[in-house]
Amino acid sequence: MEKFMIIGERIHCISPSIRKALAERDPEPILKRAKEQLDAGAHYIDFNIGPAERDGEEVMTWGVQMLQSELNNVPLALDTANRKAIEAGLKVYNRTHAKPILNSADAGGRIDLIDLAAEYDAKVIGLCAKEGIPRDNDERMAYCQEILEKGLTLGMEPTDILFDPLCLVIKGMQDKQAEVLEAIKMMTEMGLLTTGGLSNVSNGCPKHIRPILDSNFLAMAMANGFSSAIVNPCDELLMQTIKSCDIINGASLYADSFLELNEGAFSYNA
Amino acid sequence: MEKFMIIGERIHCISPSIRKALAERDPEPILKRAKEQLDAGAHYIDFNIGPAERDGEEVMTWGVQMLQSELNNVPLALDTANRKAIEAGLKVYNRTHAKPILNSADAGGRIDLIDLAAEYDAKVIGLCAKEGIPRDNDERMAYCQEILEKGLTLGMEPTDILFDPLCLVIKGMQDKQAEVLEAIKMMTEMGLLTTGGLSNVSNGCPKHIRPILDSNFLAMAMANGFSSAIVNPCDELLMQTIKSCDIINGASLYADSFLELNEGAFSYNA
Repeated sequence: MEKFMIIGERIHCISPSIRKALAERDPEPILKRAKEQLDAGAHYIDFNIGPAERDGEEVMTWGVQMLQSELNNVPLALDTANRKAIEAGLKVYNRTHAKPILNSADAGGRIDLIDLAAEYDAKVIGLCAKEGIPRDNDERMAYCQEILEKGLTLGMEPTDILFDPLCLVIKGMQDKQAEVLEAIKMMTEMGLLTTGGLSNVSNGCPKHIRPILDSNFLAMAMANGFSSAIVNPCDELLMQTIKSCDIINGASLYADSFLELNEGAFSYNA
Repeated sequence: MEKFMIIGERIHCISPSIRKALAERDPEPILKRAKEQLDAGAHYIDFNIGPAERDGEEVMTWGVQMLQSELNNVPLALDTANRKAIEAGLKVYNRTHAKPILNSADAGGRIDLIDLAAEYDAKVIGLCAKEGIPRDNDERMAYCQEILEKGLTLGMEPTDILFDPLCLVIKGMQDKQAEVLEAIKMMTEMGLLTTGGLSNVSNGCPKHIRPILDSNFLAMAMANGFSSAIVNPCDELLMQTIKSCDIINGASLYADSFLELNEGAFSYNA
């Protein structure tokens, strides 16, 4: 079994300091967060520039080049709803260490991001949704199949698609949690890789509860084969869970010091 | 889905203070630990008097009567290798709130504890082992089947047997963890209830790591349907996991205060 893949979520335009840094093309706040996440054990850094309708192509080009030139060609997930901005990022992305991840396609209006991934030999997150939240796992798995079908037809490796079952908020959709876990199990049994935005789970819950719910959901998901997630790697409880479940799953070897190790994390000191 | 059942492990003759209290028939240290565990959310209290070859019958009789008279007929697991001591405990056990649990039968020399459970309409833990550790899940499930067969033949309800897959130590048997989790899944899919001595998992690991490994293993086990465990309910991380996984499994309803609630725990204030 492969080790769990950690995609660091903290460079996100929803954060005021990141939004400002993106607008001003100021590398420091962005590099700081990238390093913090890599030091904590991230394998990929998600670079989320938001909808970026106005200057998305410039921002993405600048960010990809800046992050990769400063951080030893760090693996990146290119995250925006602006397809042209993603394509601009792909054109300058250096794949010395890993393919880029496109974040994200779905089975609806954004299915054409699969074409882009195939064209550029990139990985892509495939959100198993079309319009809104899938009603049940029949619908979820149908979308999974549509995305897979599209990727295979275009000649992609199935493992270059990271299927996102769409993690849902406990507060209001408690009855959907078991369904999401079951979907992860089904996708894993099909031989597919999975991912998801874990923090959706505890959205709206009191702050002190969020890491507890997120990490327990994650452990349950990892019991079902969940193979990566978009998370905050600086959350200690979450990282303890990822490392412990990797040990239990046999994906990394036990040593008394395992919690202090970040074996396999990306090293930006070239 | 039923809420996870917590059997408190802290009244154990391996503890010097408990051993002394048992020898001197001193109720206070025993009652103190029982109350602490019930306050923390235990549903059953395990009363472990060790091999108790000499005076097991008297100690068990005394302990069961003392605990139940002081604590509103608290549900107990009668835990000793001395069959006569268990029988003595059964004779005085008050089942106002719950049947006693016999801890434990196995598929080998201790299979006759199933007979005792059937005779007294008790619950019983069935360790899926015969001599030593089962080599693989074929062997484990064969023992599970032998215990089930015996219970059914004697007219027991299958849900009165708590099947213990035998949790194994990570340090030295890391490669067996996924197998134990798989066994829990198979037993759950058969409609059986499961339990286990969770602290086996982290045996020999550094003290600060133990709750982390135990609680993550537990979350993974609960994803597979694990329905109870013999644990230290005073371990906060473990209780957070049990409560969170009950929420995710839909076994209890989410409220922002869910970590502070011990809904369904046994109340000893009659």
